[in-house]
Amino acid sequence: MKKYIAEFIGTFWLVLGGCGSAVFAAFISVPGGENTNEFGLGYLGVSVAFGLTVFTGAYGLGHISGGHFNPAVSFGLWMGKRFPSSQLAPYIGAQVLGAILAGFFILIVAQGNPNFILDPAQSNPLATNGFGDHSPQGYSFMAALLIEFVLTFMFLLVILGVTDKPAPAGFAPAAIGLALTLIHLVSIPITNTSVNPARSTGVALFCGNPALIGQLWLFWLAPIAGALLAGFVYHNVLEDLSRPAVAPEPEGEN
Amino acid sequence: MKKYIAEFIGTFWLVLGGCGSAVFAAFISVPGGENTNEFGLGYLGVSVAFGLTVFTGAYGLGHISGGHFNPAVSFGLWMGKRFPSSQLAPYIGAQVLGAILAGFFILIVAQGNPNFILDPAQSNPLATNGFGDHSPQGYSFMAALLIEFVLTFMFLLVILGVTDKPAPAGFAPAAIGLALTLIHLVSIPITNTSVNPARSTGVALFCGNPALIGQLWLFWLAPIAGALLAGFVYHNVLEDLSRPAVAPEPEGEN
Amino acid sequence: MKKYIAEFIGTFWLVLGGCGSAVFAAFISVPGGENTNEFGLGYLGVSVAFGLTVFTGAYGLGHISGGHFNPAVSFGLWMGKRFPSSQLAPYIGAQVLGAILAGFFILIVAQGNPNFILDPAQSNPLATNGFGDHSPQGYSFMAALLIEFVLTFMFLLVILGVTDKPAPAGFAPAAIGLALTLIHLVSIPITNTSVNPARSTGVALFCGNPALIGQLWLFWLAPIAGALLAGFVYHNVLEDLSRPAVAPEPEGEN
Amino acid sequence: MKKYIAEFIGTFWLVLGGCGSAVFAAFISVPGGENTNEFGLGYLGVSVAFGLTVFTGAYGLGHISGGHFNPAVSFGLWMGKRFPSSQLAPYIGAQVLGAILAGFFILIVAQGNPNFILDPAQSNPLATNGFGDHSPQGYSFMAALLIEFVLTFMFLLVILGVTDKPAPAGFAPAAIGLALTLIHLVSIPITNTSVNPARSTGVALFCGNPALIGQLWLFWLAPIAGALLAGFVYHNVLEDLSRPAVAPEPEGEN
Repeated sequence: MKKYIAEFIGTFWLVLGGCGSAVFAAFISVPGGENTNEFGLGYLGVSVAFGLTVFTGAYGLGHISGGHFNPAVSFGLWMGKRFPSSQLAPYIGAQVLGAILAGFFILIVAQGNPNFILDPAQSNPLATNGFGDHSPQGYSFMAALLIEFVLTFMFLLVILGVTDKPAPAGFAPAAIGLALTLIHLVSIPITNTSVNPARSTGVALFCGNPALIGQLWLFWLAPIAGALLAGFVYHNVLEDLSRPAVAPEPEGEN
Repeated sequence: MKKYIAEFIGTFWLVLGGCGSAVFAAFISVPGGENTNEFGLGYLGVSVAFGLTVFTGAYGLGHISGGHFNPAVSFGLWMGKRFPSSQLAPYIGAQVLGAILAGFFILIVAQGNPNFILDPAQSNPLATNGFGDHSPQGYSFMAALLIEFVLTFMFLLVILGVTDKPAPAGFAPAAIGLALTLIHLVSIPITNTSVNPARSTGVALFCGNPALIGQLWLFWLAPIAGALLAGFVYHNVLEDLSRPAVAPEPEGEN
Repeated sequence: MKKYIAEFIGTFWLVLGGCGSAVFAAFISVPGGENTNEFGLGYLGVSVAFGLTVFTGAYGLGHISGGHFNPAVSFGLWMGKRFPSSQLAPYIGAQVLGAILAGFFILIVAQGNPNFILDPAQSNPLATNGFGDHSPQGYSFMAALLIEFVLTFMFLLVILGVTDKPAPAGFAPAAIGLALTLIHLVSIPITNTSVNPARSTGVALFCGNPALIGQLWLFWLAPIAGALLAGFVYHNVLEDLSRPAVAPEPEGEN
Repeated sequence: MKKYIAEFIGTFWLVLGGCGSAVFAAFISVPGGENTNEFGLGYLGVSVAFGLTVFTGAYGLGHISGGHFNPAVSFGLWMGKRFPSSQLAPYIGAQVLGAILAGFFILIVAQGNPNFILDPAQSNPLATNGFGDHSPQGYSFMAALLIEFVLTFMFLLVILGVTDKPAPAGFAPAAIGLALTLIHLVSIPITNTSVNPARSTGVALFCGNPALIGQLWLFWLAPIAGALLAGFVYHNVLEDLSRPAVAPEPEGEN
């Protein structure tokens, strides 16, 4: 039970930190000045925030649950023989609930700003993920599918590698968190970056635009497919199987 | 006595580095150019600065005092059974004094800039914390209360987790410092980010606006309440109590 | 064979993360607003992205291949007596192929943006490297040669030092990745920063401008020359040869 | 002799990376666009660059020389009983020579940009340090003296603490490098940040403005005075002297 609570809290933290920084702080102009971004985080700051949610959450909670905070990570670790299939459903349930609570909390806090509106003309209200008309820079469905698939594939390779026995101990949460920062640096303009179905779901439910819920399926399909391929490739191609195959309790991956 | 001196110096460093970077460097325009932020740190740079004060201070001084530098951290560790109640008062006293010295020092240095004024029309002079009219972006009292409570709760969970026995040794100051960066990335627009009553007090005393001293109580109440809840939740729900319960001298938490 | 696959994947990651972030996200204006960079990464964000490709890739894959991801690194380690000459050709082949796949993938994804064009008037389409007319800020051939030579020399000194026996274990990928960030902070304006012949080649092939392929030779010559000098200097001047001279399997350098 | 070469190279790297990023990349506008900073590093990027020179240099070379790269650090370690007086002169000589070579190299590369001029109207050409008329934002002599003294004092406390026996092993270069980043985040607007007499000297000699050489004395006096006080305070007040007093060869401080 501790594990599910840790996954719930960790995914809450991921969505609150990542999507919250995007909603509250990505664009901040000078009061009374021109409408330019004088103080806001931009894509760099939001990328740093997403990465730090995992960096800090996995150091803090990884020893309890392994620190997945992401259904694609749980699937990828399962395919890589690091995570038992019996735990998939409760982990993913806890992750999605944590993300939903964070999406709700972000909305409540945002409404404390008198200038906040959930604008249907915005492409990505509440930091939602999307493609085509709902890509931040208008990227196509195919570009979105490719980038989410490939980046989640690489994310899981990093996770599986850095939590593998011969990797230096203790650095996994740092490397995994910063991999998530890197992934955002590349792909915010394309899909607003998911690689995490729970994160996508948690904010889509509250964004007030049904079109974004209608695109959610891609942000379940592409990350999980990329993660499964990575689990297969790492275990069958890259891993040194001369060591014991099933590690019962991986620490610190996301 | 060494401990109290370390807490005094560490909190001085936290306020000097975090609030100092905000006061001196958040907004820097080109000399003679338009009034836009060409060189300044913005919210990202200030967030990085706050985090690095704890990252560096806790690596440097954590082995002496535990590296709290924050009354909410001391309360949360006490509730989590990591810190003796007899030490609460002297730690908090040392922290507040260090913060006040830093607030005074920032003011003295700022007055060395001929263009510096403590402008009563500014919402947050000297990087003070506030809500409503004194929120950087006009967020309500309720939004301020919620975000300070929840972010300090998460901050303490990270601290309690990463300094727990099964977490990887040595990484605590890094994770805790970067958690503070993340917290600022989310909440500077809302309250200018406290999560630390000493930091709020140290600059409020010198900001020249009594309204900001009148809001100080929230930045004692909400962080300490969030920290106490985290101490309770971590100890009673997440911690593995099969290990010895009281660690007499925690290292490296903030 | 695992090693070559790891080098292939790692160099794919380096070019996708580094050049991809530059192509997709370096400059992002507000939709419908003025043509100023409101959200984009700028040179700082791109520098962070390049560094994190190595930080994460070397933690994830370094235990398989050593994590070179760069022909200049392989040459420098060879000269420093850390890498056998028999492995130079297959490593470099795998690196170049991984970089080419990444260049192709970036182009495909970029074409999913309806506003994307490979503009011959751009100095550095697809984040290519160049000098003179193809330096981002118009730096001369001689400046480009000097900076690429010296920065790769320093890069290899850091790599050889941090993977040397007396250096603290486990920190090599962090130090090496962040050295690559630093190198980009200094030299993007000059050559768009190579220090890596594979990275230069992978994007030049798809950039649509033969002039940039015509400049590629410099980004093979200068980094490899700098790396060879560093290998010589480290081994003959700085290294403590009282320890065993040939480490058969260096971990975590890039 | 290896030690002096390592200090020479490390200080070259510090000045090339820190001052080089400032000279080449702090302000970059869009070609043909308005004169605003669209891509440049600003103060945040330059602060990151300075910190990463020490982060990477101390991991790479710290096991050879201790990684001082700064006369103030050598003095502070000497006062803290960590460094023998017989080594002060050769260390400082090597540091100053490395800084001078870097200053010269930056000038040569900068002259490869046809738009580069050493403008006497600039307050800080070649990233020099200054106060009053040569403070980036016009801060007074007294503000410059105070901030350089206090920040170097804190820098040395962090260095002495994180290299002390009870601190977690291996993290010293990370903490020290990021302390230097933090110091720049606070004080670039005030003095352009020295805390390092060699760094100040290396660029002042080539900046083409005798007024800046005339201010150099402050950037020797204030950092060294702050460092000496820190060495005294750490050794006599904070250090646990129940452990052996003189560590003959500290690793990884800057």
